[in-house]
Amino acid sequence: MAPTKLSDDQVKSALKNVPAWCLSGGQIERTYVFKDFVAAMAFVNRIAEYAERVQHHPDVLIRWNKVTLSVSTHDCGGISEKDFTLAAAADGMSA
Amino acid sequence: MAPTKLSDDQVKSALKNVPAWCLSGGQIERTYVFKDFVAAMAFVNRIAEYAERVQHHPDVLIRWNKVTLSVSTHDCGGISEKDFTLAAAADGMSA
Repeated sequence: MAPTKLSDDQVKSALKNVPAWCLSGGQIERTYVFKDFVAAMAFVNRIAEYAERVQHHPDVLIRWNKVTLSVSTHDCGGISEKDFTLAAAADGMSA
Repeated sequence: MAPTKLSDDQVKSALKNVPAWCLSGGQIERTYVFKDFVAAMAFVNRIAEYAERVQHHPDVLIRWNKVTLSVSTHDCGGISEKDFTLAAAADGMSA
């Protein structure tokens, strides 16, 4: 079953649970800052392992110690609950 | 010694040696396409190991099976020979 696209109000409400994330260009997005490139890459590899396991892959931009994740759900043409699950999981992996 | 910033003509000439790369927003850039996310991440990790070893880090954007590298040299405020060395090395690691 394809995930359900959330309404704008639902997205706004769900963002309250992951307050460091924001809406940007039809995706939800967060930039994490680490102490250096090696720490950033360790996070990226944790994200990659998770993404492959749940088969839901964010866009990942690495700029030395900064990692930006952007995610939406192609199957529903918007933002779904899956994106917020990934956002919360990524927050948990960033510490 | 800080690397030397290449002139526009020198950049144009050097791009002939890495023809899949292009000039974009003051950096040189290439997008690689792999068979899937796992193959893309394997390439990203090879790039990360190289970047850390030579202490020259490209920006890396991962979009499932696509990896875009963008690089310039902060120390010279432009594009240097180091960027083309990284470009050629990345091309060698992408096969």
